[in-house]
Amino acid sequence: MQLTDRQNNIIAIVKNNEPISSQNIAKELGLSRTAIRSDLSLLTMLELLDAKPKVGYYLKKGKKLTNIDDLLEKPVSEFMSSPVSVEENQSIYDTTIKLFMEDVGTVFVTDTEEELTGIISRKDLLKMSIGHGNLKKTPVSLAMTRMPNIISVKKNEKFIDVLEKIVDNEIDSLPVIDNKKIVGRVSKTILLQTIMNIAKKF
Amino acid sequence: MQLTDRQNNIIAIVKNNEPISSQNIAKELGLSRTAIRSDLSLLTMLELLDAKPKVGYYLKKGKKLTNIDDLLEKPVSEFMSSPVSVEENQSIYDTTIKLFMEDVGTVFVTDTEEELTGIISRKDLLKMSIGHGNLKKTPVSLAMTRMPNIISVKKNEKFIDVLEKIVDNEIDSLPVIDNKKIVGRVSKTILLQTIMNIAKKF
Repeated sequence: MQLTDRQNNIIAIVKNNEPISSQNIAKELGLSRTAIRSDLSLLTMLELLDAKPKVGYYLKKGKKLTNIDDLLEKPVSEFMSSPVSVEENQSIYDTTIKLFMEDVGTVFVTDTEEELTGIISRKDLLKMSIGHGNLKKTPVSLAMTRMPNIISVKKNEKFIDVLEKIVDNEIDSLPVIDNKKIVGRVSKTILLQTIMNIAKKF
Repeated sequence: MQLTDRQNNIIAIVKNNEPISSQNIAKELGLSRTAIRSDLSLLTMLELLDAKPKVGYYLKKGKKLTNIDDLLEKPVSEFMSSPVSVEENQSIYDTTIKLFMEDVGTVFVTDTEEELTGIISRKDLLKMSIGHGNLKKTPVSLAMTRMPNIISVKKNEKFIDVLEKIVDNEIDSLPVIDNKKIVGRVSKTILLQTIMNIAKKF
């Protein structure tokens, strides 16, 4: 639920004038008391405003309403970030360097046509690194998770779908795919940043 | 805002009987129509219910209200999980094995008194592993982030505080500290799981 402009105006008026009677709130808005009655009762029920008899309306301190429905419906294209990828013949060593340079947790792997063929995470790279192979000579294709075992999202999927895929499959980062090409990246960090921005708005 | 028991009951009654008149909803609850008038108007304004004249109340499909204020206020003790730790003299190699065995992204490091002295992440371990040292002979204390450069939380801090610390400092996992001892762990995954559980409730 989103508050209407009028409801937000009422909150602003109360904030600047508390305590204030419903009559005076109505006057500020150029409306009748009847016209704002339902708004006042909603704001009171939402515990955003409180009213004392013979005193008036005042702001209920410390109460807020952090609704994330709009966020949950947002399409991936609105919050994805840039993908980081290497070609299949790159070494484990070079891929690890790229991961550090770009400061990501996952690197996507492509063929020479730039189509996604695999994914390699910090965890996969660490597993290879504590082995005894020659990291500079082992291609990333030997350690990556391969198509079709890759979980991806499309640009028009929603925040809640990404959240579900990331949590249920215990992965850090997903490629955003459009016509077999990688067009973006969504990660745990991006989801949490987006949620925090909403939570801190109030 | 949390719906009251009565408001939740009203939603359940409407769900099973829609369309249903306010009179019949009141009858089901053993209450008068006047008693539930304000609940019905709140539920309608929240767009959880809708009403058609001469037809009755029905559920507004596809609308929901995912309010995360209660979650944001929850203390760490209610959502933290078990910490995974090693002692300072353990090798990088053994620490990496422990990280894989316990399937965590971060291992906490303690002295012989079990007090927290450091933290080592998958990223730190990977950085060491692509170097040329002897991982079985290098102690974890050489690669860990040391106190006092460790960000931690207390049991009574809130979800929103943890979210902020994790996002602002770009870390995956925080120790929960009580009297210098590690009593828990909170991670990006735990935060996202908790949010998903709330988002999927509706």
